[in-house]
Amino acid sequence: MSFGDIFLSEFLGTGMLTLLGCGVVATNILARSKGFGGGWLMVNFGWGLAVFAGVFVAADSGAHINPAVTFGLAFEGTTEWSDVPAYLLGEMAGAIVGAALAWAAYRQHFDLEEDPAKKLGVFSTGPEIRNYGWNLVTEIIATFVLLFVILSFGNQPVDLGPLAVALLVVGIGASLGGPTGYAINPARDLGPRIAHALLPIRGKGSSDWAYSWVPIVGPIIGGILGGLLARAVY
Amino acid sequence: MSFGDIFLSEFLGTGMLTLLGCGVVATNILARSKGFGGGWLMVNFGWGLAVFAGVFVAADSGAHINPAVTFGLAFEGTTEWSDVPAYLLGEMAGAIVGAALAWAAYRQHFDLEEDPAKKLGVFSTGPEIRNYGWNLVTEIIATFVLLFVILSFGNQPVDLGPLAVALLVVGIGASLGGPTGYAINPARDLGPRIAHALLPIRGKGSSDWAYSWVPIVGPIIGGILGGLLARAVY
Amino acid sequence: MSFGDIFLSEFLGTGMLTLLGCGVVATNILARSKGFGGGWLMVNFGWGLAVFAGVFVAADSGAHINPAVTFGLAFEGTTEWSDVPAYLLGEMAGAIVGAALAWAAYRQHFDLEEDPAKKLGVFSTGPEIRNYGWNLVTEIIATFVLLFVILSFGNQPVDLGPLAVALLVVGIGASLGGPTGYAINPARDLGPRIAHALLPIRGKGSSDWAYSWVPIVGPIIGGILGGLLARAVY
Amino acid sequence: MSFGDIFLSEFLGTGMLTLLGCGVVATNILARSKGFGGGWLMVNFGWGLAVFAGVFVAADSGAHINPAVTFGLAFEGTTEWSDVPAYLLGEMAGAIVGAALAWAAYRQHFDLEEDPAKKLGVFSTGPEIRNYGWNLVTEIIATFVLLFVILSFGNQPVDLGPLAVALLVVGIGASLGGPTGYAINPARDLGPRIAHALLPIRGKGSSDWAYSWVPIVGPIIGGILGGLLARAVY
Repeated sequence: MSFGDIFLSEFLGTGMLTLLGCGVVATNILARSKGFGGGWLMVNFGWGLAVFAGVFVAADSGAHINPAVTFGLAFEGTTEWSDVPAYLLGEMAGAIVGAALAWAAYRQHFDLEEDPAKKLGVFSTGPEIRNYGWNLVTEIIATFVLLFVILSFGNQPVDLGPLAVALLVVGIGASLGGPTGYAINPARDLGPRIAHALLPIRGKGSSDWAYSWVPIVGPIIGGILGGLLARAVY
Repeated sequence: MSFGDIFLSEFLGTGMLTLLGCGVVATNILARSKGFGGGWLMVNFGWGLAVFAGVFVAADSGAHINPAVTFGLAFEGTTEWSDVPAYLLGEMAGAIVGAALAWAAYRQHFDLEEDPAKKLGVFSTGPEIRNYGWNLVTEIIATFVLLFVILSFGNQPVDLGPLAVALLVVGIGASLGGPTGYAINPARDLGPRIAHALLPIRGKGSSDWAYSWVPIVGPIIGGILGGLLARAVY
Repeated sequence: MSFGDIFLSEFLGTGMLTLLGCGVVATNILARSKGFGGGWLMVNFGWGLAVFAGVFVAADSGAHINPAVTFGLAFEGTTEWSDVPAYLLGEMAGAIVGAALAWAAYRQHFDLEEDPAKKLGVFSTGPEIRNYGWNLVTEIIATFVLLFVILSFGNQPVDLGPLAVALLVVGIGASLGGPTGYAINPARDLGPRIAHALLPIRGKGSSDWAYSWVPIVGPIIGGILGGLLARAVY
Repeated sequence: MSFGDIFLSEFLGTGMLTLLGCGVVATNILARSKGFGGGWLMVNFGWGLAVFAGVFVAADSGAHINPAVTFGLAFEGTTEWSDVPAYLLGEMAGAIVGAALAWAAYRQHFDLEEDPAKKLGVFSTGPEIRNYGWNLVTEIIATFVLLFVILSFGNQPVDLGPLAVALLVVGIGASLGGPTGYAINPARDLGPRIAHALLPIRGKGSSDWAYSWVPIVGPIIGGILGGLLARAVY
């Protein structure tokens, strides 16, 4: 595929991902949402189905919608290194725009919400217990699972398509999301964080750039480890 | 298909949709329901599986069961404009009858419920924060997602059938339903609102006609935008 | 198939149904269960997956595991009337044994539970607002949905197998289960009620035979109506 | 397959199982987890999707990832007795390593948690009401369901692959997990218990070896019973 085709496909798919993904966090935590307090399983299904939608939308380019997947597949050998820039740019641009649309959909709820931490929480992940080392460990393990299991899908003749990765993300969120909020995707975290910094959000606080490298570095390391192990054993 | 065949198929499918969809809201909010307070994720699954059932029932006519889908597919090119009236009439008639059946199933719970807003809430959507402009934005975005992702299903060879659209609706509800209750379907909202106005519901209040245009206009705009973008990029 | 093969298959499948189905109610309501208060959606998934398991087990005989399905399919024309007795006997015998096994699995929790209504609630359904007429209406509508949608599965080429009916039952429970607890299956209700009457359950109260005809008559009427409508329109 | 290939496949699959499975319990019960109090259905989905991931990973060796499955299939006739040691060793080694990784991912939450029972609860199962006889009955029944239904999957032409067993495990957890926490897998329980005993977990208490035989013996008996009945009736 051409640079432009990859970019457009990943832009649209990752935009769908963060629109729905940031949206479900807004549903769960913003004041006066009908789904306020819907709970962690709702958030897990929301992100899983955000992946479900994003993978259909970006199917033409293989639906990475995640730089950790792009790097993991490049190390594993499926993706050409020369295509990597188009993937990364599309993923980042889409993640920013999708988060901005989620903000538009919940615009009044943002305006009424008093807690700046909740406003940032809709956009980007943050740790419950801040310790960059252990937060990194959690993100590495969770993204390792993502890549290694995706690359095991070919072991079974059954084809569940985007449903398989959607359910996997539901599971990763339920099982490994408690400490850091499972970025497991640098674009999913950095893109909305950039949107948070740029958008004129009423009463917003810090974009917490001090933490921002963890959900970038952790998922990339985890994705590469998963890709390398898959190449070794499958 | 003939006018009558389309009408009957969409009537039955949309009736199933609002019977089960209005039903799950009744389960969640009406006094003395066994599922009282079951939560937003239960409502999301209830509506998603209402779509699941409705799509099987209306499969012969392509299972629009939603004027926004009808308009979206007409603009996208899949549906003939000459068939549009049969779709719309079937959808509206079915939506009214389905909502009336949901009322019958929960008849005693309606009679005991004291809050007229809850009674209307079983039938039709309403915003948590009333602002027609922003409510419209939310419905446009949510219905855009519905149409654009449905039209992306063909990008993948996997065939999940009605399960794919059911899961998509679960996701849209979880992610974008918090502000307005995700009508994303003019018939789903207007049909039950007409039923609410016509039925002899004990202690009912206003049918809130002032808001009723938002879940009609928003979904139609969103559906057309989704259809047009899909035609442009796929 | 022979009488004995049908009986055995339906016995095993319906036994699986009530073992898992009564089990999830026990999980939700009995004292000191790890899943105490797990909620209505958990109960809905529990019953849906009980159907999922039961349909796999009873696949050889078409997996009715429900007299309403047997009658519905007999009226619709799929099932021979001469096979109906074998189905009904297998369904009833299995439903009794499955409920007894659920009691065994939760034996200590039954012994510690003080409320006799909860003990019966694990076995059989009961209305939140007792009114035989309206309770009957609810069961008729819910079982009509079950049969009519099952008979619409053939309208779509996709084959989800037992997953389709499992999800349908999750949806019916979430949407129409609030008033009566969705028996939608005479064997599922009468079998466990007989088990409740026969078993030496510590501190048990009445088996509520006064209500027992509603979840028999309602589902049979609803099933027949669903079967007849499906024969008329598909 | 060779001893080493079976071992490696089952090691990786069972490691994925306990990493995600122990992880979801940590999410639900450890202090300051984002998913704290997410509820029993979240735990059920977490374990079900842990099986989902593990079955994809271990597909090459048939994905037992459970000694009860290994014994059940050996008695049923699918698995050669000479391969049983490789399965068991891989399952046990994987279960230990996976649980250790779950501890690493939740390391800080373990350190802050004050209740030693919760720390053990992340690793291994324990009964709500301790009575070895009845606890054994519960584990036998639950694992009988697991094996008997898995062996019924072939009765239906539909191929849901790992999704079928994942959903079955969700259902068993929701329906039969309340009394003992549904080990239904000796490796899932003993492996993490060994990890709990070996790891330098801050403030940990007893590994409760007195109970440890129940989730070994119960699942093996239940698995064999399920395998034998399946061989008899299918």
